[in-house]
Order: sequence, then structure tokens, then C-alpha cells
Amino acid sequence: MTHPQRDTIYFDFVSQPSRAVVLFIRCTALPIKEQVTSLGRKTQRSKEYLTMDPLGKVPCLQEEDGFVLPESCAILRYLAQRHKVADHWYPADLRHRANVDAALDWHHWSMRRGAAGQVWNRVLAPMSGQKSSEEVAEGAVGILEQSLQDLEHYWLASTPFVAGNDISIADLIIIMELTQLQMLEGALQGPSMEQQLAPFGKVGAWMRRTQAETEPHFSAVHQMLQRATKNAIKWKGSMGGRSKL
Amino acid sequence: MTHPQRDTIYFDFVSQPSRAVVLFIRCTALPIKEQVTSLGRKTQRSKEYLTMDPLGKVPCLQEEDGFVLPESCAILRYLAQRHKVADHWYPADLRHRANVDAALDWHHWSMRRGAAGQVWNRVLAPMSGQKSSEEVAEGAVGILEQSLQDLEHYWLASTPFVAGNDISIADLIIIMELTQLQMLEGALQGPSMEQQLAPFGKVGAWMRRTQAETEPHFSAVHQMLQRATKNAIKWKGSMGGRSKL
Repeated sequence: MTHPQRDTIYFDFVSQPSRAVVLFIRCTALPIKEQVTSLGRKTQRSKEYLTMDPLGKVPCLQEEDGFVLPESCAILRYLAQRHKVADHWYPADLRHRANVDAALDWHHWSMRRGAAGQVWNRVLAPMSGQKSSEEVAEGAVGILEQSLQDLEHYWLASTPFVAGNDISIADLIIIMELTQLQMLEGALQGPSMEQQLAPFGKVGAWMRRTQAETEPHFSAVHQMLQRATKNAIKWKGSMGGRSKL
Repeated sequence: MTHPQRDTIYFDFVSQPSRAVVLFIRCTALPIKEQVTSLGRKTQRSKEYLTMDPLGKVPCLQEEDGFVLPESCAILRYLAQRHKVADHWYPADLRHRANVDAALDWHHWSMRRGAAGQVWNRVLAPMSGQKSSEEVAEGAVGILEQSLQDLEHYWLASTPFVAGNDISIADLIIIMELTQLQMLEGALQGPSMEQQLAPFGKVGAWMRRTQAETEPHFSAVHQMLQRATKNAIKWKGSMGGRSKL
């Protein structure tokens, strides 16, 4: 693992930032080897993986000569510049680029907290017997609602994509936080994805637009999420079903 | 506010990202007007401010011709490139730059969650009568400890600054999350800043190094935090003091 014969991306499709990075690599046809790193089997905590990436996270990029880069947003920025992909993904124009950067930075403390906070505490943690917090999940619902307000009325106020007229790496990162919400079908309580997204028409149209722009890869990187959702629904059934909406 | 006569940065020194951006502007002597936006008085929610920045956040950059940019990390990346400051702040070399980007992206979900989660829920929210969560604060202590482990053993493992041999915008953003911990002197419970930082020698040395590199501006941008800490300690006294450590 420490001396790959070519550039390699380590990822797991159950991780939303992993989906964003692999989707980008496929959309731009970059010559990068895909290497699944199973979060379920904790491969990212193995000695071999930690030798490569001491942070033990996915996704992680390792280039042929040993350069290692963690963090999905940094990987996307780097790949876009290193491989000179179409300008719209990460525009060279400073102000346009700054808008992409601002959307990426914004998502961490808003969309990601709101969405991942629900999916972790209401589905993934309970399913795997890990500690979860209903209080954090509740707070995340409010954070997601505010994030969707900002997405609808600020980022998508006057443009079809979050940072302008064309799709960028910011669209890929942000949409993956939203698509993971389908896992909430397996939650024992709390609002569903549909309930939370329903009031936001521009967000829905943007999601369909972003998907259309990135097919057939978009569906491909979501296959495992759909299987995981089915498993979560089965788990919910075994627990006696949804207790309240 | 919508037509400034020169580039303007809106900020409040009680906000850690605001301190990072103003520190950068002063260290690099950028010709940018400083405009305090009082979070205490909710100036960022005023109609005038929201017309400029609909997200209603600080810091926010507004350039002379009306271009508006939110998000501290995006502002720092943009200013460094726009004003052609010394290369070390945001290196032109792609890999070096990617390391700075990765450190910035990393901090959102680690250092920021761990530090701001404690200060908000144990000091700022209780002091201002807003909803706080002891459960979130407890979780934040664990997140901060893991973040400090990563900072000590990964980011600072072999270099004096987080992304290399010289100071970068990532050092400014990350250190501000840590310096806010002095506010915990006013917390009714939980570990202090000193207790949490004590096990991490490289982190301590890096903080002193980063401060030395940016004085006298570093002390100047922290004056209000020191006053706020004194107020928090007074408040704690009025509440009967720290209940447990």
C-alpha cells in the first residue's frame, strides 16, 4: 500500500465524501486506481492503512511517488488543478474560485452537521450498537433546516449550481450530504428525507440537475447506499418499526 | 454598507474566525478597512447587514466594487492570492497548497467542533441564557482530545507549522480555535484549557511559535477575548463558582 504502482484513491461508498471524490474522478475520467477501504471492517484502522494515512480516514489519495493527501475537499481541489480538468469544476478565476471555496467551507458547519448528525445518531450508531445521542439528532434536524434555507435562498438564489452557472466540486460535496438522508428510512424516529426536503423546491431541482449532469456515475456511486438503506429498513423492522414521525 | 469606498472586512473579535482573518490582514498589511460588526448586538442580523451578506455571518469581506465573500477560510485563500502576499501564507506549489487546504478542511470537523462545542455550551450559551447541552459539551471534550492527538502526532509530527516549515493561513485558523478555550475559565464544569492542552508538548510549542511569528498583532486581536474571559469568570462567581472539574 505504501508504494502504489499508480495514483490510488482509497474510499468506501458508504462515506459521503468518498462518493463525492469517486464521482469526480469518474466524471473527469482521471487515471486513478480505485481501492475500496472497508469502514465496516475498520480497514482504515489497520496498521498498513495507518502507515499510509496516520489520520486513518477515507477518502485518501496516494500518488505513485508516495505523496499522500487526506480530506475530501482538499483532494478535490488538488485533483482539479493537478490534472487540469475542465475549468468549471474549480474555476481559475479568483472570485469564481472563492465562491466554490466558500460553499465548500460553509457545508462543514451546516449541511454536514445537519445531515450526518441525523444519520449517525438515528441509524448508523444504533444499528452498530455504538453510542448515539437523540439530543444531538434533534439539534441536527434544526441545523439541516437552516442549511436548506441557506442553500435555497443564498447559494441557489440566482444560479443553477451552488457556485455559478456550471457544476463544480462544491455541488458534488454538498449533494452527497443530502443523498445520505435516504438512510433515515431506517430511523426509529424523526423526520424522513422527503419531509425535510419537501419545502425546498430549488434544492430539489438542483439535486435532479446535478444527478443528470453526472450520470451514469451518480447512480453507480449510490448503489451501496441503496443497499445500506434496505438493510437499515430491515433493521428498523426487527426493532418493531418507526416509533414516531 | 453596500457601496464601501474601499475593501472592507466585517468582523467581531469575539469570533475566532474573525480573529484569524484580521490577524492575517494586519500581518500582511493589506489595505482593507476594518469594520466591527457586533455579534452581541446582533448587528449581523440587521436588515442593512443582511442586504450585504444574506447569510448574516462574520467575518465577511466586501470589496470596493461590491463583491462579497463569506466564510473565513475562503476569505483567507482569496486574499492571499488576490493580494499576492508572501508565498508561505498559501503556497503556489500544488502539493504544499494541498497540505494547507487539508489542514483547513480537517479543522472544521475536529478542532472547531471540539473547541467551539465546549465554549458555546459551557460558557457563551449559559451566560446569555440560550439553550445549551451538557451532552454536546461532554462529547466536544472527547473530540478536542482526538483533535489535539492529530495535531500533535500528524500535523506537527515533523514540521514547526501545521503545513510545513513556515506559517500559513491554516496555523491562524487552527490556533484561534484553541485560544478561545481560555473562556472555559468561566465554565461551571468541565476541564480547563490548561488541563486539556497539558499533554501536548508540540502543540504548546507551536502555539508559542505562531504567536511570536504574528506579534504584536496576535495580542491585539485577543484583547477582547481576554475581557470576555474576565466577564465569564465574574459570571461564574455570581453563579456560585465552578461546581466540578
